[in-house]
Amino acid sequence: MSVDEVSTSKAAARIRSAAIEIFAAKGYGATSTREIAASLDLSPGAMYPHYKTKESLLFDASLDGHRRALAETKQADIETDTPPVRLASTVRAYVQFHARHHALARVIQYELRSLTPEHFRTIAAVRRNTSKVFTDIIGAGVVTKDFSIADTDAATLAITSLGIDVSRWFPSKSFSDPDVLASRYVELALRMVGAPPS
Amino acid sequence: MSVDEVSTSKAAARIRSAAIEIFAAKGYGATSTREIAASLDLSPGAMYPHYKTKESLLFDASLDGHRRALAETKQADIETDTPPVRLASTVRAYVQFHARHHALARVIQYELRSLTPEHFRTIAAVRRNTSKVFTDIIGAGVVTKDFSIADTDAATLAITSLGIDVSRWFPSKSFSDPDVLASRYVELALRMVGAPPS
Repeated sequence: MSVDEVSTSKAAARIRSAAIEIFAAKGYGATSTREIAASLDLSPGAMYPHYKTKESLLFDASLDGHRRALAETKQADIETDTPPVRLASTVRAYVQFHARHHALARVIQYELRSLTPEHFRTIAAVRRNTSKVFTDIIGAGVVTKDFSIADTDAATLAITSLGIDVSRWFPSKSFSDPDVLASRYVELALRMVGAPPS
Repeated sequence: MSVDEVSTSKAAARIRSAAIEIFAAKGYGATSTREIAASLDLSPGAMYPHYKTKESLLFDASLDGHRRALAETKQADIETDTPPVRLASTVRAYVQFHARHHALARVIQYELRSLTPEHFRTIAAVRRNTSKVFTDIIGAGVVTKDFSIADTDAATLAITSLGIDVSRWFPSKSFSDPDVLASRYVELALRMVGAPPS
């Protein structure tokens, strides 16, 4: 499979879902492909035509997950809106993604070190595009004076970091509704960039 | 060893340091005690008197690391200072801890699922005390009207989350100095709680 396509067959998607659940629960390093196959009542041989290595499964899940996070964030961004509205919509989408898909997000955010260097570079490019969505909006808000922030890189880092970290702990006793959490984080993100209170 | 003491012998500390490096690089699940011993030119038998299981090593490292993070954060908190000064000092200390000791922090923050339930409870208590430092300061600032924030739990969550997530990515091309990063995050944390710009 080329680095540019995620396997879309039904069987591959089923294997990928099972792998994500087990990777998320036990960690990638502690999981064997045999175990993933067994969880689906498949023989290791039946999995082989879809995924020849454990790393190819991780890469496919990572590419799919990172692209979905980017797509949902971009889709939330209406460029004709004001920068505060754009930041609110995109932070909401990004936080909701990491809360709703917390098992997938945990795997794709925390197991990057296990990708091959080539696969890592492919994923890193998608990550840079996701950060860029926030950097561009913050930059636009500084120009329109809706935002007041000296270090836009630090603000982008903090916003993406808050979103990513959701997948580490979500859900908790205090926060178990993705929409409530997203609303709180939207408020905090707007404060971070110095948007006047609405 | 009781759950309340971290093994303090020189040999145990040396084994713990080696384990943390390998856990941080490969993940706990993918590391064997044999590998840790080999990295120190020890036989597995020589490690046994200090650490009988891989989990006991993880627990010892976790307890030590969590206690150090709590101690450094508390030490930075001078209760006679104003809430903005207290929040700035403690956020600085917490972020610096996760940047300076990023390998240790990564292990103790992301491998909690591998602890026994009893060990997990011990660590969770230290974590709650750490969060409480921030919650108390934010609460004090709301009373003095230095801060203006409706949901102090969300603010505490966001502040600890930013600190913890540092250990996932630190250092990066843009941020490789713990002090510079801590200064940026202090600024963002003060904004999050609605402290007027200084």
